Amino acid sequence: MGDLFDALVARLGAQAVLAGENIGDDWGHDEALTATPRRPDLVVHPTDTEAVAAVVALAAEHHVPVTARGSGTGLSGACIPRHGGIVVAFDHMDRILEIDLDNHVAVVQPGVTLERLDAAVAPHGLVYPVFPGENSASLGGNVATNAGGMRAVKYGVTRHQVLGLEAVLGTGEVIRSGGKFVKSTSGYDLTQLVIGSEGTLALVTEATLRLYPRPAHTATLLAPFGSMEAIAGSVPHIVGRGVDPMIMEYIDLVAMAGIEAASGLELGVDAEVRAETLAYLVVVLEDRSATRLDEDVEEVATMLGELGALDVYALPPQAGASLIAARERVFWAAKANGANDIIDMVVPRADIPAYLARVAELAAESASFIVGCGHVGDGNVHLSIFQGDPEVRDRVLHDLFAAGMALGGAISGEHGIGSEKRSYLHDLEDPAKLALMARIKTAFDPHGILNPGAIWDTPTPAPPGIGVTA
Amino acid sequence: MGDLFDALVARLGAQAVLAGENIGDDWGHDEALTATPRRPDLVVHPTDTEAVAAVVALAAEHHVPVTARGSGTGLSGACIPRHGGIVVAFDHMDRILEIDLDNHVAVVQPGVTLERLDAAVAPHGLVYPVFPGENSASLGGNVATNAGGMRAVKYGVTRHQVLGLEAVLGTGEVIRSGGKFVKSTSGYDLTQLVIGSEGTLALVTEATLRLYPRPAHTATLLAPFGSMEAIAGSVPHIVGRGVDPMIMEYIDLVAMAGIEAASGLELGVDAEVRAETLAYLVVVLEDRSATRLDEDVEEVATMLGELGALDVYALPPQAGASLIAARERVFWAAKANGANDIIDMVVPRADIPAYLARVAELAAESASFIVGCGHVGDGNVHLSIFQGDPEVRDRVLHDLFAAGMALGGAISGEHGIGSEKRSYLHDLEDPAKLALMARIKTAFDPHGILNPGAIWDTPTPAPPGIGVTA
Repeated sequence: MGDLFDALVARLGAQAVLAGENIGDDWGHDEALTATPRRPDLVVHPTDTEAVAAVVALAAEHHVPVTARGSGTGLSGACIPRHGGIVVAFDHMDRILEIDLDNHVAVVQPGVTLERLDAAVAPHGLVYPVFPGENSASLGGNVATNAGGMRAVKYGVTRHQVLGLEAVLGTGEVIRSGGKFVKSTSGYDLTQLVIGSEGTLALVTEATLRLYPRPAHTATLLAPFGSMEAIAGSVPHIVGRGVDPMIMEYIDLVAMAGIEAASGLELGVDAEVRAETLAYLVVVLEDRSATRLDEDVEEVATMLGELGALDVYALPPQAGASLIAARERVFWAAKANGANDIIDMVVPRADIPAYLARVAELAAESASFIVGCGHVGDGNVHLSIFQGDPEVRDRVLHDLFAAGMALGGAISGEHGIGSEKRSYLHDLEDPAKLALMARIKTAFDPHGILNPGAIWDTPTPAPPGIGVTA
Repeated sequence: MGDLFDALVARLGAQAVLAGENIGDDWGHDEALTATPRRPDLVVHPTDTEAVAAVVALAAEHHVPVTARGSGTGLSGACIPRHGGIVVAFDHMDRILEIDLDNHVAVVQPGVTLERLDAAVAPHGLVYPVFPGENSASLGGNVATNAGGMRAVKYGVTRHQVLGLEAVLGTGEVIRSGGKFVKSTSGYDLTQLVIGSEGTLALVTEATLRLYPRPAHTATLLAPFGSMEAIAGSVPHIVGRGVDPMIMEYIDLVAMAGIEAASGLELGVDAEVRAETLAYLVVVLEDRSATRLDEDVEEVATMLGELGALDVYALPPQAGASLIAARERVFWAAKANGANDIIDMVVPRADIPAYLARVAELAAESASFIVGCGHVGDGNVHLSIFQGDPEVRDRVLHDLFAAGMALGGAISGEHGIGSEKRSYLHDLEDPAKLALMARIKTAFDPHGILNPGAIWDTPTPAPPGIGVTA
């Protein structure tokens, strides 16, 4: 690693390369509850694309793994350098390169956080609509995990907002894909392939993002229901009405109790109603016109009553915002309460009740406690799993994923596979697809140096005739 | 080819396999103006996925090219079997498998046409919003070319509507990707990679498509302008206002004259205004509420006046629909008038005036006549090129594509590369990207049998020790 260190210092400058004791513990973990931290051998802080390309080229030459790191807020262990090597930290590549008001796009470096992007576009009456609930997350990390969040029912996920990328392949080559346009059929879509690939195909060095008009007015409806079936059954009616809800969440009783306790929110739900409630539906509407918003709130409230809500509360603006903010922090509440793991299974939204019924059976069978909430508008179910025995938990997780996949779902809606869900993906996914994905991985990263501990678990092959260096 | 014919008949039945003189001329062309027709050696009509997989496996075994064909309405030669072999016709795989009202998706076989899908979802108050202008086009073809059309400014393109696919790889393996959900981060996005790959990576045998509420009311505004700059300059203001236009088209004077002549439309534009007009902007709005639509029409009309429109006409519903229908047929008008080629360059929408200025220079320099219209809301410029000399035309096309790429654009917004734009893509695209795409192609199609004349031009390698069979 000594030669490599010297070469990196020669290229990036001494202040941009950390090694050994100079590397703090923070560089070896993300927010996954289960992942084992692993300190990298080297941390580099490139400031431009050429430097990133140089780092990757040197790593390829030395057969050393390269792991990209944004804000470290991921939930699957994907930025942990499981096999050592170099962590490429993007905190010094954090410039908003352009806010293009004519094309309604922003061009950003990967280290820009959602918070900073929002502050920059809001004065122009625009919004970047992906809010995965952690505003300190970086756009580079969002691209790597195809971040989603609560607004996907209206706006889709990161995949739908990224129009173009600049990225460094595992060969050290820099490519640019897409651009400031929504349409292209000019060869294979490399942009979409890199999105969600968790740093295993390329290191993203720039992203071109869609911006939208920022509706001036929002309103939050809270509807307690006696069953998940009734909540899920109401979704297609509300979506089908054309009111274009921005957020549709369900929150189960335990998760709501946690939210209320953590946030100090008093939602004003009548005690008699509360006694019959099994879960809550939260609907957030937005509009550029306050009048139209009021009309839509009235219409949706009436619909919810007809669709079986026990009551409907139009929350005052502050309470609505607080409820959504508290919902965004539900992971932290689960963590504080001792959850052993969290998952974010996705199933067809109409199958959420069937999935949760199976979840309840699996919890009972394994004496686990499993609670949660989720994006009922898009089928993404977030569950906190309380089960202290690692072997039992492993079996429960396997069965939870298998049950969702049997309904036509996927293992992760937005957190990603990383290191922590790798074994389940490899157990449950079609071997032909995995083999195809492995061939695609090789097409981007022939030396196997890019994040070899995420999605796959394939230590970078040592150079011929030399022992493993990391 | 004799052994292969027998094997195909044994698997599919004699009525599903055509050879020699039984293959009509229609199987050897699409609607590209320039492509040389090529009759396939064999045409097969599979009725299910297993049959498609068997055909591909047999083709791989015999080292024979396989070209997928939907309705044959493509504009780039991508369904022409340039190197012979088997055409897989999807006209017998044309079932709408499911219209799922709870999840708002349709599941279709590739041979279903846009027309039939629309007729099936309309009674449910839903719409599949991609309208590339040719309603006899098949969904399989739409997926292969990532079809776009006029509504992309609001709804995006095929890529944004396809949630899942079933597809046959070049190995004969069948994979399923995605599902009835919008979110997933569970390995690489194979769905997005296959979309727009023009039959070179896989044969699509099933697609899961998003459906949307169908707004009950639409209105069309026609605004003559004195310059393209003023038209392009108005777009961000109208999009930024949040009225969410469904269509924003520009039509130049010559294209509008062709539309009026072909359709017999009388748009009622004042003669004095007409004398100052250089191009028209067409804006279509839609809403579930007639009242809101009227308000928005009023608002947009006022904005257009402030943004430099010479006049603004709110067209009566029938005239509006006829104008859009005539705009959709503009390719046929160009063809009837003797256009030698058409292109659909995409550039950042704000750069359309700069691009068209360069187009005018290139037309003047080469004594070509170039006119058109385009999707001004999404930067997709459709040009008809009148230049009878093939060598001059080749140079003009090269320069038109190079000029658009210099502005950050891409060669084709929605028609695709096929055989007809292949040489320009390979001349103008980054060699590192092309090499990466070639490696991806090999990952899907290791024997090089899938549509070897589209995007690439790589005749299928003959089997070891045997001459070329096709």
